[in-house]
Amino acid sequence: MKDTKATTTKLSTEAYKGVRDFFPEEMAVEKHIFSLWRTTVEKYGYEEYAASVLEPAELYRAKTGDEIVNEQTYTFVDRGDREVTLRPEMTPTVARMVAARRRELPFPVRWYSIPNLFRYEQPQRGRVREHWQLNVDIFGVTSISAEIELINIAYDITREYGLKNTDFEIRLSNRRLMNHLFLEVLKLDASTTHKISKLIDRKAKMSADVFLKEIANANSTSSVSAETIVSIIEAKNIKDFMDKSGIAHDHPAIVEIEQTIDGLSALGIKNARFDPTLMRGFDYYTGIIFEIFDLNPENRRSVFGGGRYDDLLSLFGNDKVTAVGFGAGDMVAENLMETYGKLEAIKAAHRPADIALCTLGDDMTLQSFALNLAASIREGGARVIIDQSNKKTGDKIAATDKRHIPFVAIIGSNEMESGTISIKNLSTKEERSFNKEQYSTIASFIESFVATFDIKFNGNK
Amino acid sequence: MKDTKATTTKLSTEAYKGVRDFFPEEMAVEKHIFSLWRTTVEKYGYEEYAASVLEPAELYRAKTGDEIVNEQTYTFVDRGDREVTLRPEMTPTVARMVAARRRELPFPVRWYSIPNLFRYEQPQRGRVREHWQLNVDIFGVTSISAEIELINIAYDITREYGLKNTDFEIRLSNRRLMNHLFLEVLKLDASTTHKISKLIDRKAKMSADVFLKEIANANSTSSVSAETIVSIIEAKNIKDFMDKSGIAHDHPAIVEIEQTIDGLSALGIKNARFDPTLMRGFDYYTGIIFEIFDLNPENRRSVFGGGRYDDLLSLFGNDKVTAVGFGAGDMVAENLMETYGKLEAIKAAHRPADIALCTLGDDMTLQSFALNLAASIREGGARVIIDQSNKKTGDKIAATDKRHIPFVAIIGSNEMESGTISIKNLSTKEERSFNKEQYSTIASFIESFVATFDIKFNGNK
Repeated sequence: MKDTKATTTKLSTEAYKGVRDFFPEEMAVEKHIFSLWRTTVEKYGYEEYAASVLEPAELYRAKTGDEIVNEQTYTFVDRGDREVTLRPEMTPTVARMVAARRRELPFPVRWYSIPNLFRYEQPQRGRVREHWQLNVDIFGVTSISAEIELINIAYDITREYGLKNTDFEIRLSNRRLMNHLFLEVLKLDASTTHKISKLIDRKAKMSADVFLKEIANANSTSSVSAETIVSIIEAKNIKDFMDKSGIAHDHPAIVEIEQTIDGLSALGIKNARFDPTLMRGFDYYTGIIFEIFDLNPENRRSVFGGGRYDDLLSLFGNDKVTAVGFGAGDMVAENLMETYGKLEAIKAAHRPADIALCTLGDDMTLQSFALNLAASIREGGARVIIDQSNKKTGDKIAATDKRHIPFVAIIGSNEMESGTISIKNLSTKEERSFNKEQYSTIASFIESFVATFDIKFNGNK
Repeated sequence: MKDTKATTTKLSTEAYKGVRDFFPEEMAVEKHIFSLWRTTVEKYGYEEYAASVLEPAELYRAKTGDEIVNEQTYTFVDRGDREVTLRPEMTPTVARMVAARRRELPFPVRWYSIPNLFRYEQPQRGRVREHWQLNVDIFGVTSISAEIELINIAYDITREYGLKNTDFEIRLSNRRLMNHLFLEVLKLDASTTHKISKLIDRKAKMSADVFLKEIANANSTSSVSAETIVSIIEAKNIKDFMDKSGIAHDHPAIVEIEQTIDGLSALGIKNARFDPTLMRGFDYYTGIIFEIFDLNPENRRSVFGGGRYDDLLSLFGNDKVTAVGFGAGDMVAENLMETYGKLEAIKAAHRPADIALCTLGDDMTLQSFALNLAASIREGGARVIIDQSNKKTGDKIAATDKRHIPFVAIIGSNEMESGTISIKNLSTKEERSFNKEQYSTIASFIESFVATFDIKFNGNK
């Protein structure tokens, strides 16, 4: 009840730095992406779960890289002296929740979620502080049929974004294989292995010369030459990798990679390949890791990433629960759909209602007539808005068109007295009259047209 | 790649204090509530928007009560020295967003959102630190047809929760009327008005004697007796209120209340009444305020609340944008649906898939056969899971049943070699065989049964 007009300093209408406002047109795109994700994963029997964005900070200290916890998270102390973090990733949360019910859940457990995640970084193109991410995880399957299923889902979603098989590839590696290579075959120590892994992760950002030099610098303790290391990790395919490294064909980690590629191939997915340079950031991976990579020359980058993390749940108790999961972000999805021509149709199909009733004046008897008419049309299933603003009729019709609402009716005293209203289609300019007894048929009249309209615009509601 | 087995202190599986984990069964209820909200408001042409849970702290200082900002919010300072708040309510955010685009938006603007909101309070039954809330707002309508529309939506949602008209009532008041009463009719000063408003808000928690005494204490500066004040605010209806206060029938604030009640009545909503004790917390309301109140003797409380706030957008600039909005929480929704018998059917209808393929052993040839069979069934539109765990077959079937999945098929080497699989309905125990050529018909076979199944259980997907 304070007098707001006395406020002299005006508040900013800007959102907090690095986060996004979703106005309805943008929200329509976001909802389309979420719906596409949900529809696809639910075909595979994944169930949605959720949790709060607030988690105890200790959840991230145990297993995520130090850099992420210390420099990149939003962590604060609450009034009860608890250290709280705005979740930077969902895997620790889902591991916590599965661990909490590991005695009662029927395994395999297939869960998905679409959480918002926070990272404290300087905002830049494609790098915001908050994004939404599809997380898909399967628990309790030791066989690599779990990996095949998850890659199949990631593949289906990529296709739904509008990419053809030639637009992307599925890159696979295996943490067990690379650990075996570094520690047992090349006999590097743990520290050198760690340094070399980080270099390989950044390989695409370096010239060949610089990369070789950096590997040589990192590799000060072993007798293997930097050239040998580079040659192995640049292997063209799994056979070449075996030849160069001397790792045998029947090594379990090689078998896993081959079975994954063969299993995908049997499902008609032929664009998967072994990539020894694939590293992925998180420390908790224990087996197959994978990534879907957009090959578009203007936009080469990872679209999805995931892998097996069989030890993470042990942090919560003594039971081992095997797990495979992947994540996919909303901004990458939107950029891809834009690149591959899927976004325009979604935007074009967005409209808040099927018909607008524009009232002439705000006399309450007339408004009440409009409210009742709107209720009758809604009962038939159509979405109805009333434009009871003080604008001129022409401006109201223009606003209806701007909102992509296909039908309009002007409601004045004539309509109220006669009970007969005229409904106009804004694209064909056709009009049709309905008397009081016919109000219940308006929705189906609109619906038959809207169905055609949606096909015409190739849209999605 | 650290050795997790070396970890001695086990992490807790508990969520952060006062927030909820949504396991799939709970998430199914939450999704049902969100879907019910969306379906209802979209019929009225409301468009969904969203924003980050992080907002600049200054957004709440201007207009929300001091108590809320200082004692009840999560506010912290980020690394860039910005004060950030986890939003405690959505109205300031939607006001900010509409103000940001007030020049380009076609009014009336009808928007809704389902944000999570944070309050720092001691957790207790029904009082958590984070909840989700439907927020529905209309901007740019001066006529009280806006109030009627919003109350109509709140009414529709309450009916969807399972309440009959006799289970609840719609309580209305008007800030302009109460300001007129206190400041001009009773000639109380601003401070006394504020104190008395807060007392009226807490009236239901006091005995009649205590209430009268407290009003007398608060009313030290005016010549009006506490008895007079109590008598007016205990008026049985609007006529009684006018008689006792001497406020005339044609006072605009009285007219607004009468027109709102009449407008609702014309829409068939007869359970609305003027309630001069209705106050509602937020300072920004300027006109009609309303509340839907559950009359169930065991659970008397506010289900929805809202009102007109015509001045809030002025905080962001010089334009006045009229607004009416309301909010409805997820926990109240769930409690009501439980009380009024709607929850069981939702829970019973929750199942992650339509069929489970249980594999015998994890040989990859067999797994690959199962993956391909699953893909064929999914193509027909059914949701399929593979149970490739190491459990015994009987346990796998029991797990399928526990998940409420209606069909099961055992996939072993016989099935793989012959290509003929037998699909069993777990409730009727009927089985039917399908050979390779018939795989594409499995989904429609399942679907015809599932349709019946859903009707039988009165469920919602």
